[in-house]
Amino acid sequence: MAAKDRFHDAVKLGLQKEQWTITHDPLKIEFGEDDVVEIDLGAEQILGAEKAGKKIAVEIKSFLGESALYDFHTALGQFLNYRLVLEKSEPERILYLAVPLAAYESFFWRDLPQASLQLYQVKLIVYDPQKEAIHKWCK
Amino acid sequence: MAAKDRFHDAVKLGLQKEQWTITHDPLKIEFGEDDVVEIDLGAEQILGAEKAGKKIAVEIKSFLGESALYDFHTALGQFLNYRLVLEKSEPERILYLAVPLAAYESFFWRDLPQASLQLYQVKLIVYDPQKEAIHKWCK
Repeated sequence: MAAKDRFHDAVKLGLQKEQWTITHDPLKIEFGEDDVVEIDLGAEQILGAEKAGKKIAVEIKSFLGESALYDFHTALGQFLNYRLVLEKSEPERILYLAVPLAAYESFFWRDLPQASLQLYQVKLIVYDPQKEAIHKWCK
Repeated sequence: MAAKDRFHDAVKLGLQKEQWTITHDPLKIEFGEDDVVEIDLGAEQILGAEKAGKKIAVEIKSFLGESALYDFHTALGQFLNYRLVLEKSEPERILYLAVPLAAYESFFWRDLPQASLQLYQVKLIVYDPQKEAIHKWCK
């Protein structure tokens, strides 16, 4: 199995261990007033899940690239574009960015990602690909 | 010359044709309180330019990837992280995102990029790689 898919499954299993029901895999979110401008964003592996009436969407990132900073730029841009779309189409669903524990420990404590996550109000899920579990939620 | 470098030079020449002086190529912007967290963002080809006391930074994107939407996610994340850093280090310098005319015409009129550029207040420069000129400024 490709590492990317393994990470995807780890998040899925981790959420299920915390009693979330996976309702969409992938969650397809579209935007635009007519067919021409509909953009399928589902390819980026977003999960939809529910627990006790609470709905979330989870953008799963592997951070397997050569540069964590570059991966972070892309993850941030995707997150903010997805959130913009979700706020219009399904405002009750909260978007999270899921990052692996190794990237969290090696990169996310730095000044730039910390300042950026705070400024743009990015909610993080830190997951452990080995244990196939959610390590923590940063809201 | 690689297409990416050609696009970079087109923006540079285009700015010079409009009487901008290129002061930094690349413009290095760093962030953090000590050496450990200093991150060199210069690799992403940011230009620094000045005209009549006005200072700008220009993030040059080629949009040569397979997916304009994916390229846009990355460009947006980079732009917002760079702007966060610039606002701290050099608040008088205004950041622009430079995109080629073809990407502007094929992608940027869509609902999602339009809504995103507006929400996140992204200033665009549209450049023409063939004419090596600035096509327009969208402020």
